[in-house]
Amino acid sequence: MHVLITNDDGISAPGIAALGQALRKIGKVSVVAPDREQSATGHAITIHRPLRTRRMVIDGIDQALAVDGTPADCVKLAILAELIAKPDIVISGINRGANLGTDLLYSGTVSAAIEAAMLGLPAIAISLADFRNTDYEGAAEFACHLASIWSTHNLPPDTLLNVNWPKNPPSKVLVTTLGSRRYTNHFDKRQDPFGRDYYWMCNNVETDTTPHTDVWAIDQGFASVTPIHFDLTNYRLVSQVSTWPIALP
Amino acid sequence: MHVLITNDDGISAPGIAALGQALRKIGKVSVVAPDREQSATGHAITIHRPLRTRRMVIDGIDQALAVDGTPADCVKLAILAELIAKPDIVISGINRGANLGTDLLYSGTVSAAIEAAMLGLPAIAISLADFRNTDYEGAAEFACHLASIWSTHNLPPDTLLNVNWPKNPPSKVLVTTLGSRRYTNHFDKRQDPFGRDYYWMCNNVETDTTPHTDVWAIDQGFASVTPIHFDLTNYRLVSQVSTWPIALP
Repeated sequence: MHVLITNDDGISAPGIAALGQALRKIGKVSVVAPDREQSATGHAITIHRPLRTRRMVIDGIDQALAVDGTPADCVKLAILAELIAKPDIVISGINRGANLGTDLLYSGTVSAAIEAAMLGLPAIAISLADFRNTDYEGAAEFACHLASIWSTHNLPPDTLLNVNWPKNPPSKVLVTTLGSRRYTNHFDKRQDPFGRDYYWMCNNVETDTTPHTDVWAIDQGFASVTPIHFDLTNYRLVSQVSTWPIALP
Repeated sequence: MHVLITNDDGISAPGIAALGQALRKIGKVSVVAPDREQSATGHAITIHRPLRTRRMVIDGIDQALAVDGTPADCVKLAILAELIAKPDIVISGINRGANLGTDLLYSGTVSAAIEAAMLGLPAIAISLADFRNTDYEGAAEFACHLASIWSTHNLPPDTLLNVNWPKNPPSKVLVTTLGSRRYTNHFDKRQDPFGRDYYWMCNNVETDTTPHTDVWAIDQGFASVTPIHFDLTNYRLVSQVSTWPIALP
């Protein structure tokens, strides 16, 4: 098995090293990841300037390339410019911090996995639901387990798995739906040394802990696996909006 | 009616001016938009640095602010830092170029409208399916019509409308589902004047013209309105993945 690892925390993040150590036991590992942190870049891609790559040495990794672009750029470039041999699976992570519920819209980690699924590859996004916990090993072992299972099970095209790993070793892994996790952001208005205003986004998170959602599972200390698609059509509303007087006036 | 306009082409793009001219006939218009082009930024938000605003003068617009951030930043900042009075509807566009099918994942225009829907506001993303056509008036008039209809019709929370306007005046407006529009990107490998490699993404678009999709509607010369949600859970796969031997080894 050949695994491509990417992330949004940047190529030197500990999540990549932990994944590499675990995955090398089941196959060949390549890393193509952003050269710096790219959190909250969502599914941004780079079209107005070129991308450059830099060869890196990471312990135990067969091939590692840093890219001056976004997580989605890394996956596109790795596969389409054939920087590496075609992987059997793409694993994005291990992200420092959870990617739950509506977080997925902002997440570079998840967008890289969506990009891989769009390119027809099995893909897993994996995140550690804690900022201070530096124990990535449990999550890395689970990613390895899930990659092995996937080789004998199939998912339909245009789907991927989003994994969140709790702070402490979980007693169970649950298959979940996405919960609601809304940022009730506010902006701190400050003044720079020259008296000019600036605004800095601050987060308050409101989590809805409906049972069997990913938010709830992590809140209960379980690991969470959510099947993800990326068809944004709201099919139930097509007939409703068709009854609107939408014709040109 | 108070309308907030934003976009991803930047505050001086002609799509904003055209929307402003049309919408001022039905209410008060505010513009909070990126200070420069932010195409293909997806749902990126700015968390690691502050944001600054600059007051602009746009003919016929009550209040216009340029923000040195992404389209999603503009919506968050406008509403949450109360830079403007709370709008009744947010319109993102008119984008130069279509936003069809899987384009939506990369689109800053659509992400701004998603952000507005997340903040509980009616939201429309509108795009002109042509790069050369500078006739934004038809699309702007339709956005105005749709905003007026919305005031007497309701959509459930967490939904928005994605509009694509064809190159030539359409005979019909169709309510559609998202089609498939995959970029079979390749990367041009070039050398800089110092002999170093760089890669530039090139697009070939493969469109699947299944009837009643947005891609098909635009291909036929019709206008397209697609109801959009942003729940990425693949509900049909939850029970399937639950049968996998997913338990911790």
